[in-house]
Amino acid sequence: MSTYGRLFRVTTYGESHCASVGAIVDGCPPGLELTAADIQTQLSRRRPGQSNLTTPRDEKDLVHLQSGTERGVTLGTPIGLLVKNEDQRPHDYSETDLYPRPSHADYTYLEKYGIKASSGGGRSSARETIGRVAAGAIAEKYLKLAYGIEIVAFVSSVGKIHLPSTVSSASSNEDDDEAQDALSEEFRHLIKTITREEVDKFPTRCPHPETSERMIQRIIRAKDAQDSIGGTVTAVIRNVPSGLGEPVFDKFEAALGHAMLSIPATKGFEIGSGFKGTEVPGSKHNDPFVRRDDGKLGTTTNWSGGVQGGITNGEDIYFRIGFKSPATISQGQATAQYDGTPGELAARGRHDPCVVPRAVPIVEAMAAIVVLDQLLIQNSRKTAASLLPELSGLPPSMVQPKNASAA
Amino acid sequence: MSTYGRLFRVTTYGESHCASVGAIVDGCPPGLELTAADIQTQLSRRRPGQSNLTTPRDEKDLVHLQSGTERGVTLGTPIGLLVKNEDQRPHDYSETDLYPRPSHADYTYLEKYGIKASSGGGRSSARETIGRVAAGAIAEKYLKLAYGIEIVAFVSSVGKIHLPSTVSSASSNEDDDEAQDALSEEFRHLIKTITREEVDKFPTRCPHPETSERMIQRIIRAKDAQDSIGGTVTAVIRNVPSGLGEPVFDKFEAALGHAMLSIPATKGFEIGSGFKGTEVPGSKHNDPFVRRDDGKLGTTTNWSGGVQGGITNGEDIYFRIGFKSPATISQGQATAQYDGTPGELAARGRHDPCVVPRAVPIVEAMAAIVVLDQLLIQNSRKTAASLLPELSGLPPSMVQPKNASAA
Amino acid sequence: MSTYGRLFRVTTYGESHCASVGAIVDGCPPGLELTAADIQTQLSRRRPGQSNLTTPRDEKDLVHLQSGTERGVTLGTPIGLLVKNEDQRPHDYSETDLYPRPSHADYTYLEKYGIKASSGGGRSSARETIGRVAAGAIAEKYLKLAYGIEIVAFVSSVGKIHLPSTVSSASSNEDDDEAQDALSEEFRHLIKTITREEVDKFPTRCPHPETSERMIQRIIRAKDAQDSIGGTVTAVIRNVPSGLGEPVFDKFEAALGHAMLSIPATKGFEIGSGFKGTEVPGSKHNDPFVRRDDGKLGTTTNWSGGVQGGITNGEDIYFRIGFKSPATISQGQATAQYDGTPGELAARGRHDPCVVPRAVPIVEAMAAIVVLDQLLIQNSRKTAASLLPELSGLPPSMVQPKNASAA
Amino acid sequence: MSTYGRLFRVTTYGESHCASVGAIVDGCPPGLELTAADIQTQLSRRRPGQSNLTTPRDEKDLVHLQSGTERGVTLGTPIGLLVKNEDQRPHDYSETDLYPRPSHADYTYLEKYGIKASSGGGRSSARETIGRVAAGAIAEKYLKLAYGIEIVAFVSSVGKIHLPSTVSSASSNEDDDEAQDALSEEFRHLIKTITREEVDKFPTRCPHPETSERMIQRIIRAKDAQDSIGGTVTAVIRNVPSGLGEPVFDKFEAALGHAMLSIPATKGFEIGSGFKGTEVPGSKHNDPFVRRDDGKLGTTTNWSGGVQGGITNGEDIYFRIGFKSPATISQGQATAQYDGTPGELAARGRHDPCVVPRAVPIVEAMAAIVVLDQLLIQNSRKTAASLLPELSGLPPSMVQPKNASAA
Repeated sequence: MSTYGRLFRVTTYGESHCASVGAIVDGCPPGLELTAADIQTQLSRRRPGQSNLTTPRDEKDLVHLQSGTERGVTLGTPIGLLVKNEDQRPHDYSETDLYPRPSHADYTYLEKYGIKASSGGGRSSARETIGRVAAGAIAEKYLKLAYGIEIVAFVSSVGKIHLPSTVSSASSNEDDDEAQDALSEEFRHLIKTITREEVDKFPTRCPHPETSERMIQRIIRAKDAQDSIGGTVTAVIRNVPSGLGEPVFDKFEAALGHAMLSIPATKGFEIGSGFKGTEVPGSKHNDPFVRRDDGKLGTTTNWSGGVQGGITNGEDIYFRIGFKSPATISQGQATAQYDGTPGELAARGRHDPCVVPRAVPIVEAMAAIVVLDQLLIQNSRKTAASLLPELSGLPPSMVQPKNASAA
Repeated sequence: MSTYGRLFRVTTYGESHCASVGAIVDGCPPGLELTAADIQTQLSRRRPGQSNLTTPRDEKDLVHLQSGTERGVTLGTPIGLLVKNEDQRPHDYSETDLYPRPSHADYTYLEKYGIKASSGGGRSSARETIGRVAAGAIAEKYLKLAYGIEIVAFVSSVGKIHLPSTVSSASSNEDDDEAQDALSEEFRHLIKTITREEVDKFPTRCPHPETSERMIQRIIRAKDAQDSIGGTVTAVIRNVPSGLGEPVFDKFEAALGHAMLSIPATKGFEIGSGFKGTEVPGSKHNDPFVRRDDGKLGTTTNWSGGVQGGITNGEDIYFRIGFKSPATISQGQATAQYDGTPGELAARGRHDPCVVPRAVPIVEAMAAIVVLDQLLIQNSRKTAASLLPELSGLPPSMVQPKNASAA
Repeated sequence: MSTYGRLFRVTTYGESHCASVGAIVDGCPPGLELTAADIQTQLSRRRPGQSNLTTPRDEKDLVHLQSGTERGVTLGTPIGLLVKNEDQRPHDYSETDLYPRPSHADYTYLEKYGIKASSGGGRSSARETIGRVAAGAIAEKYLKLAYGIEIVAFVSSVGKIHLPSTVSSASSNEDDDEAQDALSEEFRHLIKTITREEVDKFPTRCPHPETSERMIQRIIRAKDAQDSIGGTVTAVIRNVPSGLGEPVFDKFEAALGHAMLSIPATKGFEIGSGFKGTEVPGSKHNDPFVRRDDGKLGTTTNWSGGVQGGITNGEDIYFRIGFKSPATISQGQATAQYDGTPGELAARGRHDPCVVPRAVPIVEAMAAIVVLDQLLIQNSRKTAASLLPELSGLPPSMVQPKNASAA
Repeated sequence: MSTYGRLFRVTTYGESHCASVGAIVDGCPPGLELTAADIQTQLSRRRPGQSNLTTPRDEKDLVHLQSGTERGVTLGTPIGLLVKNEDQRPHDYSETDLYPRPSHADYTYLEKYGIKASSGGGRSSARETIGRVAAGAIAEKYLKLAYGIEIVAFVSSVGKIHLPSTVSSASSNEDDDEAQDALSEEFRHLIKTITREEVDKFPTRCPHPETSERMIQRIIRAKDAQDSIGGTVTAVIRNVPSGLGEPVFDKFEAALGHAMLSIPATKGFEIGSGFKGTEVPGSKHNDPFVRRDDGKLGTTTNWSGGVQGGITNGEDIYFRIGFKSPATISQGQATAQYDGTPGELAARGRHDPCVVPRAVPIVEAMAAIVVLDQLLIQNSRKTAASLLPELSGLPPSMVQPKNASAA
């Protein structure tokens, strides 16, 4: 379905070549100062044509707010928004239409619907993400103002080129239990301090000068070869209150993973120590508790990535998403036509050789949507519980100690 | 929330020490032959105490069907089912109750609810998964009978010990574009042919004798050290029709990832070539089409893992889930009490040193639930579309060619 | 929330004075011929300014399709649509702003959101229904083409003036069990044959010349008195297949009632014999079965209104909705300001003295949306069940007899 | 589907003759004192066999809590509960099985599922409502403790015998605008003061001695004639905060109507002045505002029934539900068999001649479920809005005046 969320809900519409793409954002808290400019910033970060690493199409992607605000303040009612498609020309038939692009949605959309948009990727086009980025920008503004929540994503790998600190270089000796450096000091510092401004200094959005430079070369090599290359995006969400995430089926990481894997071209999601963490024994992987300055419990390490038992614990939430190499490439591919006839397809036009830099604001948007939705649900519970008469006589194993978590 | 699914819906209840755990399974197709025995098989595979690798508690886990069937046939109405908790004793207070277990749900549940079950993991206990496994067994039976769908999961790593074929040994030279062996012939053969019978020959549920043996040693080492170790589970779903998965937010892999990441202790999910695939250029990663014997299109390779553009393409769907090392360990841990007082916690009792062998049927169950739910939604669309008058005059780029996908 | 439906889903946005009102229609079957003209017809029937009985504002209400179709055919993807608000002027402050209009949403919206649109009814404005009427027109087109389903609504009362056949004139003797004429031959004939063309011959949309004439006089009297008057709308849905409606919580009439009671100004809903039917003993009220020409069972009477046990039985579905007198009137009302100061409010501007004629297409739209959503769910079940192996050995009390319901 | 609610969610299971009926209640606020006794009271009020007016079957209907509480306090986790079916005997074949009971669910269930429970009403049985009554009792306890909310339902008519004050005796002169006595002083007093204790003094649950006596005679007459008779239930919800109800599709009355129309045998729902109110001009029907003692606005009359624009205004919410005469009667009925063969059906066994007295706790339960669900959603919004920086510079027409609604 085209709707995500329970209390903060985003519904999107739009194909690559129809009149417009857009969204209805339902459940935004009332009384939030909001103008198109708040949304435009992230839309522009998502926009193609920002450097020679991305597709040269220049689409302005100006957002038009339709409803839900008056005098720059949200009314609590649904926010309709849209971005016009500049290119709405009907598609001319071409020989390449005989071929479903390998690993693209051409074939599966036709299998699903029995009909498909004549050109571009239709609904599977990356233009669909415009509505999400807009919705995410709204969620983000609320989260920032009400909770000081910060969300920053960055490119952590392109092809085989990885941001140093995110990859373990630990012993591959299977009997060596020494904890790996997946959570190196450098990485923990990075996720604690990284800002969008820092990220945007680099055309690759990888905030590490040397690595970024190598990534650029890698992307240019793909481009020159009429090929494409994938990569990963890492993101951090800071200042999220503890207690978010709904057991059982809507654990925080399940909702977050769902949202991330709904972004086109994603093939994997991991949170905290992720797959590498599965190799670390519990005694090393567990995050010991410690009293924080504000009197609440924190953890000295953060292998958990801010989530324990499916519920946030107040520490930084960080995660990584894998994006495959774009399916549309210009070099010839031996494949078959829709009717099964073998042949060679050479896609025309210019295509993004690597999508991860542009995926950064999309990841941030989906993260903001998930956090706000879960926050609204948990707030409802806490408010409800706070109205009940105080309990007495429960054993200490069932309740919070008096002097903890007072805040 | 405790409900998963749209048309095939599972709602679970139950903590570790309450009267029973169970589920309501809503939306099961009517007319399916179903008895408790169909469910018991998978419940027994999930059960602890199956070997010396798992926790020695022996719980019979007998399922009691409450409703939804008569004379061994489903009525289409909700299927209530429950498994009694053998151990319902009230928890005696102990000193360990002062400590939230590091990286366990103790602390976060208290933050979420302001109250928690006095003992065990409460709702975060693995016993909650009983309801899911039961629901999955029902879904599976339907999928097998109606579509011949097969779902098999197996352990692909324990700690640093990996099933050979699932790990890339390709060049780490970042300019080397040669495709890696993540999709080795051996691995493709494995996912095409592996059966539960084969998997269950091994106490580790890793269907590779030598690797399994090393995994056993690794688990025993963790056990002896009063420590724990994580691992990964790989699963395959065969014979899924093309067209499943709902753009945009409920792509097949998003729904599948959501389901898998809702299993306790999971930290990562990847489908098809996954994270490794992000390093492979599009020209190598794309799966070329070819006409299959039944006239439909298939692909010669399967880096996509059976899903393209969020929609199944009819090829084998395979994916991998990472499970962290269990948080509950018996060796002493320096940590803090609920009130922030530093100290050392040594958890009593016997705990699973490694959960991945027991996670296998849970992964299979969640996979079955996702597939059936998506299948019901897509069937609805296909049936609806089939009742419309035939269209004419559409350009060939919008419709299926006459002689393809006829089946 | 601003979304209705499970598989056919409508999400609306828009206030009375924002840039546009619109909707996203998700889950429309692919391959349906659809243009703006299909939608415009019903939008125009909803439009004010059609006669001297309604508000004289003339808004063109032209619909703009944004997505989801190509070359006049639905793609199965979400259909975005919008209608521009002609009057987007910022509201000038006036003394009447001090007063919440009695029985209007002014006060409750402010209580709900803590903020409200400065003018008109904001989100509670009848303009919100534009999105629903558009969505309903799409659903209707499908239902007509695929099932021959017909939906016709008409005005059955204005104030105390009732369409003769819909009101019981039976004995009020409480011991008199004779069945009443709520289901008179005349009424049954009416619901079997009434068409929109016939309904639209009357400015009141009450298809009974004499009654319509009296209704006109009643509305004019309200208008002249700067007052307003309520009424009821009756609707029929013909050719709905048996088996729609989901036990338990989503019974057909529950879903239908929900949809109807979501229309502004509604205060009541009844299906079939409704409230009057509660006075008729079971022996008279039960609808006897009879074999129809097509071999399936029908009923000789239809007190049930086409629904039994929450599930459609294939007979005509008819129901009635009560609309209160519009709250906004121009005559002075003694009331209180927002701050509690007593005073007199005289609303300016021209307002609909009676909304029921314009409510007719809205009722039809909501009915179509409900039917299509329930149809898609039931189709999914039937398709799923049809793929299972045939059962044998069940007692005759559990299964359909061979020679019945064969169609 | 078998689930109701968004944040407070009830899922039920069970047929008339399976092992048990029950429910999972998800989203109950944590920290609520709750034992089986809290639930049993309402279950016992629902139970048959309470007087000679109801079916003589005596089922104990003892509820067993399975999960979600410890030491008599809710944990915030799902509450599993069940009531065993005492009569689980397999159904013996009888000649009446050849006939679908007229106006019962026998036929439509078979059309829906292609299979049905061999005996009783299966899932359409009134026993399904046990799960709802239990869930409602939990919701009620919370609402009472946290908000002082009171919910009382009572029988307002049986056949043609109506509680005097609820029926209009106004002029039927269609030009007479004098307001009717639908909201007589007597009725307003009744809904303000009626208690369950008072209601339960009467076997009919109609709290008016003379009327109750006549109702008893009416029911006995139906019983003696092997016939049945319908009626209406009126309910009031007191002390509901303003601001509940979600525009657009989930208006308070839409959600409430949905819930009520999901109760078996219901044919109509009206809120506030309802259908009668449609005959009253706006000038008489509008509820003038007045400052209440607590500083908030109240209304001097309450034709609205506590809801305006789909949102609660803090006044008493009252509504009426119509229940048809039970379909199962013992007297012979000329009808047709499943295969279309005409014949006469005489149902065996003893059946409720009138269900409205037993419907009273079911109505209360569904009301409680709706209110709590809507309350949780609105609480979430209010908490979210309260965390935003204060706004300045908005025109007075957009915001609440300082000295109003301060509470």
